[in-house]
This record gives sequence, C-alpha cells and structure tokens, in this order.
Amino acid sequence: MRTLNESALGLVSNLLENPNRYRCAVSQFDAVRIIDCGSNVLGGLETGLMLARICLADLAQVSLLNTEQGLQVQVYSDDPVSACLASQYAGWQIKVGNYFAMGSGPIRAAACREPLFQELKLTQEMSPCAIGVLETATPPTPEVFDYLYQRLPKSVQDLYLLFAPTKSLAGTIQVVARSLETALHKLHTLHFDLQTIVSGFGSAPLPPVAHKTLDGIGRSNDAILYGGKVTLWVRCADEMITQIGPQVPSVASTDYGTPFAEILTRYNGDFYKIDPLLFSPAVVEFHNLQTGRVFTYGQLAPQILKTSFGFGNENKENGEKSS
Amino acid sequence: MRTLNESALGLVSNLLENPNRYRCAVSQFDAVRIIDCGSNVLGGLETGLMLARICLADLAQVSLLNTEQGLQVQVYSDDPVSACLASQYAGWQIKVGNYFAMGSGPIRAAACREPLFQELKLTQEMSPCAIGVLETATPPTPEVFDYLYQRLPKSVQDLYLLFAPTKSLAGTIQVVARSLETALHKLHTLHFDLQTIVSGFGSAPLPPVAHKTLDGIGRSNDAILYGGKVTLWVRCADEMITQIGPQVPSVASTDYGTPFAEILTRYNGDFYKIDPLLFSPAVVEFHNLQTGRVFTYGQLAPQILKTSFGFGNENKENGEKSS
Amino acid sequence: MRTLNESALGLVSNLLENPNRYRCAVSQFDAVRIIDCGSNVLGGLETGLMLARICLADLAQVSLLNTEQGLQVQVYSDDPVSACLASQYAGWQIKVGNYFAMGSGPIRAAACREPLFQELKLTQEMSPCAIGVLETATPPTPEVFDYLYQRLPKSVQDLYLLFAPTKSLAGTIQVVARSLETALHKLHTLHFDLQTIVSGFGSAPLPPVAHKTLDGIGRSNDAILYGGKVTLWVRCADEMITQIGPQVPSVASTDYGTPFAEILTRYNGDFYKIDPLLFSPAVVEFHNLQTGRVFTYGQLAPQILKTSFGFGNENKENGEKSS
Repeated sequence: MRTLNESALGLVSNLLENPNRYRCAVSQFDAVRIIDCGSNVLGGLETGLMLARICLADLAQVSLLNTEQGLQVQVYSDDPVSACLASQYAGWQIKVGNYFAMGSGPIRAAACREPLFQELKLTQEMSPCAIGVLETATPPTPEVFDYLYQRLPKSVQDLYLLFAPTKSLAGTIQVVARSLETALHKLHTLHFDLQTIVSGFGSAPLPPVAHKTLDGIGRSNDAILYGGKVTLWVRCADEMITQIGPQVPSVASTDYGTPFAEILTRYNGDFYKIDPLLFSPAVVEFHNLQTGRVFTYGQLAPQILKTSFGFGNENKENGEKSS
Repeated sequence: MRTLNESALGLVSNLLENPNRYRCAVSQFDAVRIIDCGSNVLGGLETGLMLARICLADLAQVSLLNTEQGLQVQVYSDDPVSACLASQYAGWQIKVGNYFAMGSGPIRAAACREPLFQELKLTQEMSPCAIGVLETATPPTPEVFDYLYQRLPKSVQDLYLLFAPTKSLAGTIQVVARSLETALHKLHTLHFDLQTIVSGFGSAPLPPVAHKTLDGIGRSNDAILYGGKVTLWVRCADEMITQIGPQVPSVASTDYGTPFAEILTRYNGDFYKIDPLLFSPAVVEFHNLQTGRVFTYGQLAPQILKTSFGFGNENKENGEKSS
Repeated sequence: MRTLNESALGLVSNLLENPNRYRCAVSQFDAVRIIDCGSNVLGGLETGLMLARICLADLAQVSLLNTEQGLQVQVYSDDPVSACLASQYAGWQIKVGNYFAMGSGPIRAAACREPLFQELKLTQEMSPCAIGVLETATPPTPEVFDYLYQRLPKSVQDLYLLFAPTKSLAGTIQVVARSLETALHKLHTLHFDLQTIVSGFGSAPLPPVAHKTLDGIGRSNDAILYGGKVTLWVRCADEMITQIGPQVPSVASTDYGTPFAEILTRYNGDFYKIDPLLFSPAVVEFHNLQTGRVFTYGQLAPQILKTSFGFGNENKENGEKSS
C-alpha cells in the first residue's frame, strides 16, 4: 500500500507546477518547499479544494457546489479513518519558539507522535517525503523545518509545507471540508469502534471568508456545528449506534445553541474551556450495513448560521442604505 | 467507432491497478479476470460509481452528491441508448447449473443474444475483450466462463467479470444509477422510437444498503420508482410524446403506490407477476428539440421512500431508546 | 503565463480527437479547423459543457447537476476577469458580407480590438493559435477566415472555430454558463473596479432547448435574469459594494419583470432599445474578503422562469390530453 504522504504528492506537484493557476507562492530551502496558499497570496476556490484534498491524502473526493442552502463543500471517502484521522485532523500543535500553527495532513502519519495514532493502532509511515498543512498566516521558518525533521523518520527526504490562514479563501474551504473528520473524531472520543466505519460522506456550507481570525474560526466551526451533515456506512450491532449515536451531533453538547464566537467569548476566549463534545456536525446519519437500518441524530440550525455568517445583519443594513 | 467493451476497458484497468483504493479483490483464471466489488470485500462509494460507469460503457457521467433530499446518484449521457440499453440494462439471465446472476455491461453487446438487440437494430460487437457485470454475491465459476465464451464472438480474448450483490455499497450504487436506463427501457416497451432520443439525464436517491437481498431489491427499486427523475432530449412529433408520455412514469402502473417489497409479497414473491410497466422513474420530462416544448409526467413520492428506506421507523425507535 | 488561447487548446484537441463522443463535425481548410457543435450535428450535454469551458479558456470549472429547481449549469473560477471578460464574453460582432455571428472565446484576447480590453488594461495575446466560438447555425466561410486572420497577430498560425446555434443543446448550455460573466460585465458597466474581484461562482437553470432562435434567446436570457445566482469574492471598501451592489441584479432594471421574449417584442424586436442594465443575474452576493461582510442583492423569480420555459402551459395541455 502507498503511504499517505506519497498518495498526496501528486496533488502537491500539481500546485508546484501551476502556481499561477492556483495563485499560490512557492519557495524552496534545500529539500523543503513552502507553498503559501492564502497568506501573502490570494489563493482561491480551487486552491482551497486542492488544499482540502491534500489534507485528506487524496483519499477523498472534495467538491464545491451550489444548493438550495447556498454554496456547500462536499467530501466523501472510502477510507475515512486514514483520510480524516490519520491525515486531515489538525492534531499536531507545532510550537517552535514564537512560531505556532495547527498541523494537519499526511505529515502527521510520518511523525506518528499523537496518542491518536496509538489509540487507532496506526503504525508510523516510512515515507520518502512528508506533506504538512499549517493553518496560519505565518510561513514556517528554518527552525520549524529542523523541529519537524527531528520528529520525522530518517526515510523522509523532501518536506512540503503548505499554509493558509483561516481567514483566506483556501483556508476557509479546507476547514469546512472537515465535516466528515469532525464526526469521526467525535466518535473516537465517544469510544465508538472506528474499525466498523466503512465509508463516509459529509457536507457543510461554505461560510463567507472572515476578516478577523476569530470570526473565521467562528464561522467555519458554525458551518459544521449548525450546517454540517454526515452519513456514515458502518458494520456493527445496532446497539452500538443507538447507545453512542445520540451523543454524536453538536446538539448533544451543553454549549450548543449560539454562534461559536459567542461561546468562545462566554469562556473569555479560553478554547479549552469549551465542551470538547461540541465539535461535531449538526446531523449524523448511520447506515448500518450489518442490519440495513438507518439512524439519524441531530438537526440543521439555519437560523444560527445566518447570524454567524452575517447574512441577516448585512442585508438589513444594505436595505437601509440602499432605500 | 470504438466498441463498448473497449470503451469501458480503461475504467476496468483502473480497478485492476488500484484494488486497495477501490477495496475490490481481483483473481485471474487464464484470460479471465474476476473483480469482486462487494461480496467478500467491502467495496465502497467510489467502487460503486466505477461499477456504474463500467455498466454504462464509460459513455455517461455518474456522480454522487448531497441534496435537500439526501444523497443522490446522478447520471447523464449523450449516447443513452448505447450506454443504457446496449450495455447497462441487466438483460442477460446467466444460468449455468446452480449458478444464477443477472448480467449487464458491455459484454451483452458482444454476445448480442437478447431480442432487444434485434429490436434496436444493434449489430454484434467484434471486440477483443468482453466486460460483464453480475449482480450476485457468488463469484462466477469456470463453467460460467465456458458458458460465456461460447456465446461471445471469437474475437474476444480477455474476459472481465465484475460482481457485487445488491446488498453491498457498490451494488446499491450501480443499481440506483439505472434511473435513465429504466426510463429508456420502459419507452422501448411502449414502442416509443428510441432513435429520437438525443441525450438523457437521470437522478435517484441513494437508499440505505439493505441487509437482506429482498430489502435491497425493494429499496433500490423504490429509489427509482418513487424518487427517480429523468430528463430526455428528443426529436419527434409532440404527439408521440403526448400519446406515450403519460404511460411512462411509474404512477401509470396499477401496481404503483406501495414499497416494492410489499408489492412483491402481494404476488407471493413471484417477480414475473408484477406489472412490467411499473419499472420506470417517478418523473419523466421530455424536452422536444424539434418543437421546443416540454412535457412532464409523474411526481415524486417522498413518503413512500421514507417508509421503504426505514427512515421514519428507525428514528421513532431511536427516539424512544435515547429519551 | 500561458496565453488564454493555449490554455483552451487542450479542450479543443479533446473535441477534435473524439468527434463521435461529442457528436460534433470537424472540417479543415489549411490551418483552419471548423468544429460544428450543434448545427448540422446533434451535439450534446457534454459537448455544451466542453464548449462552455473552451469559451472560458479552461480557467473555470463547469458542471451540470440536478437540484430541487431542476437542472443547473454551475461555473466557478479563480480568474473570472480573464475567463469571463477577456474570453467568454460575446463581445465581437463578426460581420463579413452576409455572414454574421457573435464571437466569443480566447480569440478575442488575441484580436484585442474591443474597447473592453483597453478599459480592462489587457494587452494583446501573441499566441500561436486562436480559438473562437461563434453563436450561429452557419459555418464560417473562407471570407470569415481572412477577416479574422487580418485582425489577429502574425503569431497566430492555427485557427479553431467552433460554432453552435442558441437553439442547440450545446448552444443552450454554453449560453447558460454565462451567469458569472453577466455579473462581471454588468459590474464593469457600473464602473465597479474589477481588479478587486478575486473569485466567482455562478449558477443558472438549464432551460429547455428552444425550436425558434427568438425563443432560444428568450429562454437563455431568462435563465440568467430570473434564475441566475452569482457569488463574488471581492477585496474593496464596503461602500463600493453598497453603492453599486443594489444596481447589479436584473431587478434593478426598468425592463425587469416579464420573460425576455416579451420585452423584445415590446421594443418591436430592437435588441438595442432594451435597457442594457437588464443583463445580469437575478441574485448577486458579494463576500468582501477585506471586511468579512456579505451583501446580497436581488431575488430569484421562479414563476417567470416557468412561463418562459413553457413548463406550466405544456403540463396543463398534457393534463387535458391525457385525462
């Protein structure tokens, strides 16, 4: 089997070969290539879709389409645990001196340092390259390269680091492409046996790109918490679903009900005081291949999305200005 | 012009080269390759889409997307008669000893044995290979290979047989990708001149994969009968449409109105007692290129789908268990 | 950077190599290749999507999908000014003797004759080939080739001319793929600074192909005027949006409110008497990357679409005939 890092390499090469099309900027330091996808460059919709696919190790289909509810980012995978948890999940806090970024992408499977890998019984990838995605406006420095190489297997020669802030077009798309991942991570937290998950499909609305980082984090979380819908095909006893299922959608959290930015303010900006069980899609549907039964939990909350995305407010103001 | 079998070969090669990605199992017996897409393997969503495209001889676009009504399989083709009737239609009953499977895919055009081919004035394909799709859980045996080779032209060297049961993920997708085909076959039965059909687009909801074969057949039929919508671009007199059109959607059948599994039970499981005119999409829309007029027949029946797919029931039960 | 003409060449080659699949007819006169996509040939849905992508110089994604509102053509681009205005906009009136056709596609950027190019500060493309799309049923003649070569730079050797009438399947699709372009052109007319536009997404319903040219023009215009929705990601002061925004959707025009064919009749068929500000999508949404705010203007008018597309009328008539 190909490693996740090798699987994503074709997409990375696509960006490297077409920086103009994807409006990204490439710089090179020895064997390290840095790809700015939305900080000092504009990036774009296709850049964001590519970034999302790279996060998912090219093991998922990601698309952007217009629906009755507006623009949606849809993602599906037949290897959701590898694509979403071993690769896409932003589980690596990369702190080097003053530098900080949440790290995601297949590089995590080559580092294999997070407890999640042991919990999922995933072994370290001995890949010839490593591909990391950093959610930040700041390009990684040589100190970051050293920090990463020290935590990667000797097999890794080439290092590819892509970055984009949440408040960029590409950054927003890659975050909203995490509907399926959020469901899987929540299930893992609730001790649902992930080995029973066969395939997954997720969708979430594309929020307007925020100007401030906090708004960006707020809107992209709300897109999933109040607008995300995930379908999981599983093979297990129905009891496992009926026991854990009701706790999976965001509505099961005590912090559910207001835009994420408000929740964060309520906790004085302390992210770690928020109920960790909040982070999950609005709706989760289980299709049990073992029994043929379907179980749906949660519901969409379009009104909260409107407030969060600034649709209602802006329109009213426009109305006043334009009348 | 390329034969249908050669047209589909690229997609088959894709499966053969990436069995891990598509979670299928390949075995070889001389010049015969067997690809299990969902019996002793898990298969997946992408496997199902590939299987559907192979059934359609790669002459149609097939996609999976989330809509207001849930997940949908959409298909469109500019050569719908070749794609759907000469290839996709499951018109070959393959019975060899105890072995039985409905056969579809381009192999039918190489065998050219069904009356349908004479009726459509299609000539036998002298292709170098033959590609068949079998809706069954049982892998074909050497006796089946012999049976098939005897019915194929001498030109055929390589034989590719893909199989998946209805109650697998791939099997469900490939069956639900038959919305357009069902409309064409019904039109043929009603003596509508298929030569006047220029292009077609069909969509149908993806039902939950069933555990029992009967439920699988029920749900996938219901997806089309009560949730399928087809648009046909035709070139003919409006009278031809207004005469035959009203009989095309499933609602025109006396057996319309209850989930398919119930209908089958009503006839004591005797498939052949069901009104053959039942098998058609819920809605059929004709766009007449010759006159610019549009004709729509039938309507969607989302309530019957809910019952058939087990959405209503399961949810109520969950509600009780989780409250 | 690649020229727009070279960018589109891969797609043109695809048509040239697969005339059967795309049901188009290719003829050659020295270095000129003519591709009929819907006049003396049937063309098709995929032909139309290819034609749309070629018009957009392959700088946009174009897709056809079924939604709650019926079939839609969706388009998005991270280089909308190049794709839509420098290439797709039908801004070149090609008149040679009795021959007349509206010209679009990347050939316009090689000719660079329209005032629009100076206004947008676009320089002439010195490309090795030129690719033009003509909205007409009549194949271009050698006089047309001469006319075009005289207006193209000496660098141009190969000339590719694709044509399809509005009342063909491909012609209808390529026109309806202009939702985003229409918004950009209207914004330019209103002196909105197009340099501030980063990316764009547009969708519009696919109308039934008309039999008469006038109906075809009517329906395809209505698809955008009353069913088109465009999202633009911009970087500018909010005031620029609130000042110009309300004038962008079609509802801002005094001619808004009835099917386009009726409007044209009201002006005795004189296209140039119609308010030029009518030509824009029903809904335009601005996402300001500079402030994170969203501004929505206009609304969809599904009732006018029904009348224009002939859905209501035909159905009633069918109902009478079939009952």
